[in-house]
Amino acid sequence: MARWHPNARGRLEQAALELYSERGFEQTTVAEIASRAGLTERTFFRHFADKREVLFGGARALQEFLAKKVAEAPDSLAPIDAVATALEAVEFFFPERREYSRQRQSIISANAELQERDLMKLASLSVALAEALRNRGVGDPAAGLTAEAGIAVFKVAYERWIDETNQRDFRQLVRTALDELRAVITHQ
Amino acid sequence: MARWHPNARGRLEQAALELYSERGFEQTTVAEIASRAGLTERTFFRHFADKREVLFGGARALQEFLAKKVAEAPDSLAPIDAVATALEAVEFFFPERREYSRQRQSIISANAELQERDLMKLASLSVALAEALRNRGVGDPAAGLTAEAGIAVFKVAYERWIDETNQRDFRQLVRTALDELRAVITHQ
Repeated sequence: MARWHPNARGRLEQAALELYSERGFEQTTVAEIASRAGLTERTFFRHFADKREVLFGGARALQEFLAKKVAEAPDSLAPIDAVATALEAVEFFFPERREYSRQRQSIISANAELQERDLMKLASLSVALAEALRNRGVGDPAAGLTAEAGIAVFKVAYERWIDETNQRDFRQLVRTALDELRAVITHQ
Repeated sequence: MARWHPNARGRLEQAALELYSERGFEQTTVAEIASRAGLTERTFFRHFADKREVLFGGARALQEFLAKKVAEAPDSLAPIDAVATALEAVEFFFPERREYSRQRQSIISANAELQERDLMKLASLSVALAEALRNRGVGDPAAGLTAEAGIAVFKVAYERWIDETNQRDFRQLVRTALDELRAVITHQ
């Protein structure tokens, strides 16, 4: 029987982040991550498929959360506002999380393979948002375009949120980025 | 001295596309592509870094073209219209090219590694568009958001363009997609 490891997942994520920051993503092995976390490789692979995935452990949860929030948004909301409301509701981006997120992003930015994985995550998010909008009766290509607009807003809000000088919360940053997107798209 | 191979690049692209369609991307080797094109592996590697890149040979040219068109757009154009004008000017998407593009897209859609590469291509395009806009004096985050909006428009136009039932040219599809994006983003 497998031993019970309290918060093994979180410890592995933290150990991976430390090691990737210290010596680089390429130079770190799964064995080293497990060892730093005080766990076995076997435990690592119970939680993550490989050393890349340990940085994207929250992707599926985020996607399911956003799809659910879009589904639950009041019928009266326009599609883009249903998406904005979903993004604003993400509680994952609380202040205590910022340092972790900032470190994670700088590791991803330094590695092409991780950048590709990050883009896949955003593309999957976009697909999931579009699907959730279609379930609200939004047609094509409006569903796809609204989802893409939502992802653009998400990216800008996230970049600003992790910026060291940022004083605003994620919710405000989402609303601001959407207003800015509206401005650039309608300015003729 | 290397032998001169007329249009070796195009022959390799065509051979790769045929083989990827026939037996799948994973199952095809560089040796087989070179052989089908009547060329050597050595010649293949003079043109492409690996068998993935052979599907993305036009990416850099497209990026440079779009950046140049954004730079050349009349000063009077709003940023989003400078981007739309650049996209409309892409002559790469002529009718005779459609079958090739359609096949290429279905190969990419069937393979996660190729999808990641395709997303990287679009992300690079977005970065290049944003940079070209900054050179026109557009600030941040307007430059980034406008570029992202341009990429969303590009994706929708391209998907429709390769659709078998499509009767419109790429230029019209760009303009339509931009109008649709405006509609979804401003509808409150």
